[in-house]
Amino acid sequence: MSQKVRVVQYGLGPIGQAAARVLLEKQKTGLVELVGAIDIDPKKAGKDLAELLNLETATGIEISSDAKKVLRESNADVAVHTTSSFLDRVQEQLLLCAKAGVHVVSSTEELAYPFVRHPERATALDMVARQHGVVFVGTGVNPGFAMDTLVLTATGVCTDVTRIQATRVVDAGLRRGPLQRKVGAGITPEAFAEKKATGTFGHIGLRESLLLVAEGLDWTLDRIEETLDPMLANRDIATPHAEVTTGQVAGIHHAITGFRHDHPLITLDLKMYVGAEDPHDAVRIDGTPPIDLVVQGGIFGDTATIAALVNTVPLILKTEPGLRTIKDLRIPRAFATSPMLHAH
Amino acid sequence: MSQKVRVVQYGLGPIGQAAARVLLEKQKTGLVELVGAIDIDPKKAGKDLAELLNLETATGIEISSDAKKVLRESNADVAVHTTSSFLDRVQEQLLLCAKAGVHVVSSTEELAYPFVRHPERATALDMVARQHGVVFVGTGVNPGFAMDTLVLTATGVCTDVTRIQATRVVDAGLRRGPLQRKVGAGITPEAFAEKKATGTFGHIGLRESLLLVAEGLDWTLDRIEETLDPMLANRDIATPHAEVTTGQVAGIHHAITGFRHDHPLITLDLKMYVGAEDPHDAVRIDGTPPIDLVVQGGIFGDTATIAALVNTVPLILKTEPGLRTIKDLRIPRAFATSPMLHAH
Repeated sequence: MSQKVRVVQYGLGPIGQAAARVLLEKQKTGLVELVGAIDIDPKKAGKDLAELLNLETATGIEISSDAKKVLRESNADVAVHTTSSFLDRVQEQLLLCAKAGVHVVSSTEELAYPFVRHPERATALDMVARQHGVVFVGTGVNPGFAMDTLVLTATGVCTDVTRIQATRVVDAGLRRGPLQRKVGAGITPEAFAEKKATGTFGHIGLRESLLLVAEGLDWTLDRIEETLDPMLANRDIATPHAEVTTGQVAGIHHAITGFRHDHPLITLDLKMYVGAEDPHDAVRIDGTPPIDLVVQGGIFGDTATIAALVNTVPLILKTEPGLRTIKDLRIPRAFATSPMLHAH
Repeated sequence: MSQKVRVVQYGLGPIGQAAARVLLEKQKTGLVELVGAIDIDPKKAGKDLAELLNLETATGIEISSDAKKVLRESNADVAVHTTSSFLDRVQEQLLLCAKAGVHVVSSTEELAYPFVRHPERATALDMVARQHGVVFVGTGVNPGFAMDTLVLTATGVCTDVTRIQATRVVDAGLRRGPLQRKVGAGITPEAFAEKKATGTFGHIGLRESLLLVAEGLDWTLDRIEETLDPMLANRDIATPHAEVTTGQVAGIHHAITGFRHDHPLITLDLKMYVGAEDPHDAVRIDGTPPIDLVVQGGIFGDTATIAALVNTVPLILKTEPGLRTIKDLRIPRAFATSPMLHAH
């Protein structure tokens, strides 16, 4: 790659800040340049990005709440977009990007596979993206990698596949505070039941990963079963962000299975809780040959999500315009790393 | 995928026969059709493919040694090409495919990354492929997956990478006879030394995988070190294809490391020997986050190579014409599997 990719960071919450930090670090390779930063928070707007990120040297990038202006004036190629999990909340933001001719790599979980949950929005977004010659893609560690890209990749060396099981066990105690709250760490089982009843609790993106795997294999599912249960603490656990006493909720156990004719074909099983023992990612393929893949210790989510977003930046420049998924991307790879900066 | 892909099997050695068998099986899904079979062996030519494969029902596909005729008349989209490991031996075959407008997925190890070992041939092949609007790509389990695709994929969730180590331990005793002979099972250490001195012994494709990983990460290597040593049997071992007595050669230990400024950046370490304990594939990434990925039991090579070839068939239809590598392909996935045929 010889041309420098111009990137705007769209959204400066914890994930967006971390992405901006990584993009600034990667500038040293000469392969990428951060050219704008957008956030609607009036407390952030107007500041140099360095102030928000606690960097010593000013970046020259002023955080702006005027997305349209930044997208138009920065001459950006790609926006790394990290504002919300839900498609209805980001649709207007994506349209702004398209109209400015800016590709979007987004952490919006529902964007990873929006065609079933939001068919009309998906069609509209696809049309706009094509019209303006840009790509929209949703990715991250999960959805985006652990339970879809890695699963499909594992099937790539199988002549036949009859059943897929992916498990991910995350020690939420090692993750950032918002994630611990997201999984209900420290609440009572009763409070968990109430949250669950709202229908917006649990991991967002599990169904999206399931649908990505099914479509990637040309498999038709005729039934999907989803369960969401609390993981209860069997001991008192304290983390920098939460305290969980025995019997309280430590996190979630969220699982989904896709069936055809009552045969379970794909199961994704996710446990995210503080104090998890043996965190790991596993993909088990029953097939020819069978595959038993384990990422020991697990893929550390906070960093991996940022990596998945940033590493997708050069890949979407090679992807056909439209609303795309990880299935349409070239094989993943780290982007703009500089091993020699660290090898002394 | 709605259109049926028309495939020619080019080469009917052990790998080609197995690929043909898999393609015939996959016809049941309606996604693919085997439309021709090519082999230069006069003992095979003229027979129905079913005879060679010991199938009960005739396939209607007559094995032909006239590649040009089959490629022109079969109206094929893709050739699954399995004739030789070496580029100079397959170049004419690839040209025939291009001239007939047929894409090529090939098991030719040197084709996986031919730009360094055969720069002039690579340039010529790339030009011809573009001229005729077809894709050439070399793949398989190794090179093609275990030590390149899987390695690059693992880095896809890293913001930074400083060092990569991939190991593959294969129990050659479980593999087909030619592979056991290829790794020298049963010969003396002296015979091993003689074979090694010819320069054509050892695993073909290790250097190709190393170069694929380096290029995928935009890493420049300034030195490559390669070692090839015998694995000696520490006990008597009998397989259906070879007998190895204590002290004789059980197989190979082939390793390669790419350096920059004397720092080892990428190491690929391959052991293929009869009686191997703990066969597995492992990818270890030193980076942020670190990744420690293991395929327990290993990826079974004979089947996986066929899978990698056949599963690439639909992917190259979505790839830009030219001489391509796995880096240019969409993420791998199993093609035309039919889980319900097996789920009773």
